[in-house]
Amino acid sequence: MEIVKDTSTTKTGSNVTARTQILEANNERYAYRRFGNGPRLPLLFLQHFTGTLDNWDPAVTDPLADTREVILFDNAGVGRSSGDVPQTVADMAQHVFVFLDGLGLSTCDVLGFSLGGMIAQQMAQDRPSIFRRMILVGTAPRGGEDIMHLEKPSLAKHLSDPNLRGYAVLQKIFFAPTESSQKAGETFIARLAQRQEDLEPASGPKVAAAQMAAFREWEQFSGVRFDHLKSVATPTLVVNGIHDEMIPVSNSYWLSANLPNAVLLTYPDSGHGSLFQFHESFTRHASAFLASDSASAAY
Amino acid sequence: MEIVKDTSTTKTGSNVTARTQILEANNERYAYRRFGNGPRLPLLFLQHFTGTLDNWDPAVTDPLADTREVILFDNAGVGRSSGDVPQTVADMAQHVFVFLDGLGLSTCDVLGFSLGGMIAQQMAQDRPSIFRRMILVGTAPRGGEDIMHLEKPSLAKHLSDPNLRGYAVLQKIFFAPTESSQKAGETFIARLAQRQEDLEPASGPKVAAAQMAAFREWEQFSGVRFDHLKSVATPTLVVNGIHDEMIPVSNSYWLSANLPNAVLLTYPDSGHGSLFQFHESFTRHASAFLASDSASAAY
Repeated sequence: MEIVKDTSTTKTGSNVTARTQILEANNERYAYRRFGNGPRLPLLFLQHFTGTLDNWDPAVTDPLADTREVILFDNAGVGRSSGDVPQTVADMAQHVFVFLDGLGLSTCDVLGFSLGGMIAQQMAQDRPSIFRRMILVGTAPRGGEDIMHLEKPSLAKHLSDPNLRGYAVLQKIFFAPTESSQKAGETFIARLAQRQEDLEPASGPKVAAAQMAAFREWEQFSGVRFDHLKSVATPTLVVNGIHDEMIPVSNSYWLSANLPNAVLLTYPDSGHGSLFQFHESFTRHASAFLASDSASAAY
Repeated sequence: MEIVKDTSTTKTGSNVTARTQILEANNERYAYRRFGNGPRLPLLFLQHFTGTLDNWDPAVTDPLADTREVILFDNAGVGRSSGDVPQTVADMAQHVFVFLDGLGLSTCDVLGFSLGGMIAQQMAQDRPSIFRRMILVGTAPRGGEDIMHLEKPSLAKHLSDPNLRGYAVLQKIFFAPTESSQKAGETFIARLAQRQEDLEPASGPKVAAAQMAAFREWEQFSGVRFDHLKSVATPTLVVNGIHDEMIPVSNSYWLSANLPNAVLLTYPDSGHGSLFQFHESFTRHASAFLASDSASAAY
């Protein structure tokens, strides 16, 4: 591996304004943002299906950047990162290893959301020293169920609605159909729209197709279901909205029941985007969890 | 109702030393302890199967008493409370209403553990104004499953072991069979044993039989399963050990999925007594949850 470009740290405080940087490693160019400051280990953010750097809610990233650097990352083929989107979570995990090695980070904390949570799990299995503490939001273990089946009527009705475009779709599918949750979705979208410059290209059908293939592969398992989780000792906080239609909460039940060292937190009245809906509570919990140096996930 | 005896507040800081008081109301005598101080609403503790005032871990009661009064309560027929143990949760709930009315408390917070969590749910349904915030630990909704089946081999082997007496049985059945959880059970028992004076009589077979009848009745339901929870608006924190053999965590999944305003927290490597095993974390979460004045359970 060879690092030929900027790996320095830019101290800015918000994903509304943080500039996008490029790390070149292993013949790939990885787009990322790195901001924040403080004594704690850097926190790596691994993103959801078709999401780019611009999809990280500043109400989640920024409070966490108060006491550490946060690092937002575009995997291969997403946003301004080069290469093809891998069709397996395992291959996506390899790109994150190349990126972190390129940054010279041998260990960090991680917040993996949805697809990003699967990549985090894969990495914790492949290289147990990579993450000190792991936050898994709205995600599923290998062998989980009903993972991102966008053809389901509850999701398809929004995805095929010609009146919904761009972020308006996210409001429907990331939030519960209650008035309160939809209102939280509106403010989420307004926060994303605050960023006006240095924007990412939106993900197209090619990104979606490859990531969808990765979900289908992730639903497969061999041997005893969820047995592979029992060796993942990383202290883990599992978070899920109780009405998640994209990756149902049953997957988080399995994660917390089979990971030997995981606390589960679920939020009411919320769907896939519970961390955005309850951003004040979520960042408080995440901060407390990450502040702990205990061997136990309990915080 | 007539109050003929002591309802004053005794300020002491610990369940190791707090004196037991008697409230007379409705021709019953209710034993209780009331200690602590601070600006917050009093926190009522409702106890588990056969448990008395002496079964409350000072590592849980005392930190919570730092910012409020805590009130520990013997239901009818338990400890030094008069009367017969009711055979339904609904009738147990009526005794708590009489007690709180006798104290002049029209609203308070509640921590219901196991059987106590069922009584708390029943009260929140019967009189929605009674609890501002509700903590339900290791408990089940009406219509839940596998509630306190002590005849199960995993429990019966300890309950029928002639080498296990008194608190030693609790260590086995309240904690997971791992070395770490059993060690936590040992320290739990040591904390209970700190109280040396003004002790409660242990519950006998008559108490156990009536409470067991109440569990069997609580497993019954009519109409749509768990539908009754949808009208309970009280902000609720649901807590469970992930390996609870006495009241499995599936019951807490149902509570948090059907109560409209409930956060779920589960602990790894623990059983029914997760709140005692992780007393530092639990009291931190409980304090944060109770400190919130939000309409939402998220804290």
